[in-house]
Parts: sequence; structure tokens; C-alpha cells
Amino acid sequence: MTNLDDLQKKIIAFRDERDWKQFHTPKDMAISLALEAAEVLEHFQWKNEAEIAEYLKTNKEDIGDELADVLWWVLLMSHDLGIDILEASERKIEKTAKKYPVEKSKGKHNNCCEKRNSSKYSKYL
Amino acid sequence: MTNLDDLQKKIIAFRDERDWKQFHTPKDMAISLALEAAEVLEHFQWKNEAEIAEYLKTNKEDIGDELADVLWWVLLMSHDLGIDILEASERKIEKTAKKYPVEKSKGKHNNCCEKRNSSKYSKYL
Amino acid sequence: MTNLDDLQKKIIAFRDERDWKQFHTPKDMAISLALEAAEVLEHFQWKNEAEIAEYLKTNKEDIGDELADVLWWVLLMSHDLGIDILEASERKIEKTAKKYPVEKSKGKHNNCCEKRNSSKYSKYL
Amino acid sequence: MTNLDDLQKKIIAFRDERDWKQFHTPKDMAISLALEAAEVLEHFQWKNEAEIAEYLKTNKEDIGDELADVLWWVLLMSHDLGIDILEASERKIEKTAKKYPVEKSKGKHNNCCEKRNSSKYSKYL
Repeated sequence: MTNLDDLQKKIIAFRDERDWKQFHTPKDMAISLALEAAEVLEHFQWKNEAEIAEYLKTNKEDIGDELADVLWWVLLMSHDLGIDILEASERKIEKTAKKYPVEKSKGKHNNCCEKRNSSKYSKYL
Repeated sequence: MTNLDDLQKKIIAFRDERDWKQFHTPKDMAISLALEAAEVLEHFQWKNEAEIAEYLKTNKEDIGDELADVLWWVLLMSHDLGIDILEASERKIEKTAKKYPVEKSKGKHNNCCEKRNSSKYSKYL
Repeated sequence: MTNLDDLQKKIIAFRDERDWKQFHTPKDMAISLALEAAEVLEHFQWKNEAEIAEYLKTNKEDIGDELADVLWWVLLMSHDLGIDILEASERKIEKTAKKYPVEKSKGKHNNCCEKRNSSKYSKYL
Repeated sequence: MTNLDDLQKKIIAFRDERDWKQFHTPKDMAISLALEAAEVLEHFQWKNEAEIAEYLKTNKEDIGDELADVLWWVLLMSHDLGIDILEASERKIEKTAKKYPVEKSKGKHNNCCEKRNSSKYSKYL
């Protein structure tokens, strides 16, 4: 499967088989999205870069589960709110490209930081 | 475009053109994911169901932008951590199906609630 | 104990007895604050107002634990960053009062909503 | 002012003068708490330890404002839910002390990490 539509349909079918739509208000789905994102974040807490690199060696499946949960809510919310998430993504990339044109943004992040000295910061990924 | 791989490649290219990978530690990407999810949630704050239904009539593009931002980080993190997000999603659906078999879960959400009386709760979506 | 300073000192002593300051970077403390706030939020997910009112009857201690965790990180971060949280709170109240003067804000929330009809919305708290 | 009760009373008075209690459902207050915690976190995003140390020199008031917002919702929620936050904090410290006794926890964080070599990690705070 390489098609987002198929995944979205599968998730909707999963939900509807269980008659769970009655619980899925927009506010509660948005809360779920935020809570699942917090669960992704929890994996990286209290670890420095070296510890994270080590942790990733044995915890990819768990992190993948949490990222999948976030994607689940993105797809379910998009569906229920009538938003085409791929179209929205294309549009957002164009907006972001205008906000951060390559020539002005190269090596500067959110206009906040000077280019980092590559010898100074480990870049293990 | 209906292909998640293509969207992911586009986002990676966007990032790499700007030489931003140097900033994208796993921890900071996970923070971004959580902050973007919070921005989705913000749209639904302080509104009751009727107000949300009204709000959705004119704010779908903004909400779509925020959901696209969340998807952006799901795809960028998955890529950098070496996680196949579609495979992870398929696997997670199977796990969740085992946890919540249809016969036991129908109309009950997270085993926490009785089936709601459909005349009692508005279901506007 | 009715003194915030005493609580803060107690938390710092707890931390220092365990030699945990070495782990408490500002970024990781801010992540903790966000994760504990997410745990508070989790209590209210998937419940409508009536279900929450019912839930509160038997779960106050658990919710109190989570709110205490949030306060813990507010006090620990404030201390480590050299912020007087009571002074900051006094200052913030003054700023907010200027932003939302009583005469313009009465019954309107974040300038977003008309005054709600009190007969229309249950106000169980 | 060194008294948390006084701060809490001031915040309740602020809210009631504006007739905002009608909007303050437990779920929406918990959302606010999470969103304000996200705003604290945002200050530390995309910065390494050295950049954060630099940033703190000139941004303490802004961070203090955000921490004050988190405290605001802790106090408002506690009040509305009938939770004595100082009592809850005392109780939680005792629980945490039992979970992490000094002799077992010294220099180990959440039982997850070995004591860090102090020469290896910068400890700028």
C-alpha cells in the first residue's frame, strides 16, 4: 500500500465498524491528536543526542506506533471535517516556500539562527 | 497527487534546499509535531458544538493548514528516523484491531463509555 | 502550608537530594511541563459535560495529582531560570487586564463569542 | 505577595468581573492549560544548550509571562474542580518520594539513565 486514500479509508472503516463516530466530535479528535503527539515527544525526553541515537537503535517500532497514531487522527479529522489533506499539504508547501524563499532561508532556521558550524554540532542523523 | 511517498519526497527536498537538516534533531522535530498539534487544537477551544459547526463553515482552509503542518512533521520525522510510516500504520491498525475487537467494542469507546443515546447527543458531523 | 515559596523549596530539595539537576535542561523541563499538561487533558477526553460531571465525583485525587505535576514543573523551571513566578503572575494579570478591560470584555471570551444564553448552556460547575 | 491563595483569589475575581465562568468548562480549561504549556515549550525549540543560555539573557520576561499563564490555569482549574492544589502538591511529593527513594534514584533519572559524567555534559544552569 502506498496510497494515503487507502489508509484513510481503512481507518474510517475501522471506526465505523465499531460505531465510534458518535464520540468523534472535532474537539475530542483534536485533543486526541495533541495527546498522541505528546506520546511521540515522550520518547525523546530526558535524553541527550547521544542517548537518543542509542535509544533509536531498539525503539523504532514503538516510535513508529506513536507516529502512526498521530497520522491516524490527521486522516480521521481531515475526513470528518471535509478537508483533502493532500491538497491542503500541497497548498501549505507553496505558502511556506513563499514565506521562506531558498535564497533568504538557506542555513537559517525560522530566521532565528545563524548557520551552525558543522564541526561544532554533532549531526548523527 | 495521491501518493504519500511523493509528498514526503517533496517535503525532504524543501528542507534540503534550505540546508535545514542541521537543525532537525529528533527531539526538536518531536517538539514541532506537538506544537503543530496544539495549533490544530486551538481552533476548537472555547467553542461548544454549535459554535464549532458554525466556525467550520468559514475556517476549513486554516484548519487544513494546521493539519498539513502536523502531517509535515510526521513525514519528516518518519524519514529521518528510518520509519516507513505506511507500514507502521498498517501494523498499528492490526494491533488496535486486536485490542478493540468489533464484538466487544461496538458503540463503546476506549471501554469507558456506554453507547450514547442518539437522541440525546447532537451528532452534527 | 499556604506558601508557594515553601512548596518550591521542598521541590528543589527533593530534586537536589536525588542529584537530578544534571538532567534538568530548560528544554527538557519545558517538555515535561507540556507532557504533564497533556496528562491533565487526558482526563477530560471523550467525555461530554454530563460524563465529566459524573467522572469528577470519583477522580478528583487523580486529577489533583496531575495538576500538582504541572505546578511542580512551573516551580522548578521558574527557580532554575531565575524567574519569580509570583511577580511574573502579578505582572501578567496587569497585562491581561489592559488587554481585556471589564467594560469591553464582560461576557465575551477572547473577543470571540457573544454572551451565552444562560438557559441554553448548562453550567454545572 | 507570597501567598498562593491570594493569587488564586485575584485570578477568580478577574474572571468573575468579566463574567467568563460560563465559558470555563473543565475540558476547555484543560485545553488552555495544554496550549499555554505549549507556548512555554515554543521558547526552547530549535535551540541547542548554548543558544538557550544566550536566549535566556534577554527573554526572561516573556518566558515568565507564559509560565504565569500555565499557573493561571492550574489555579483556576483547581478552584473550579474543588481541588486544594497545595494539599494535592504535598500529597504528590510524598507519592513521588516513595516511587523514587533517594538511595535508589540518586543520579538516575526516571530509572532510565546512568549518572552522567559531569565533564561530558555542559551544565550551564
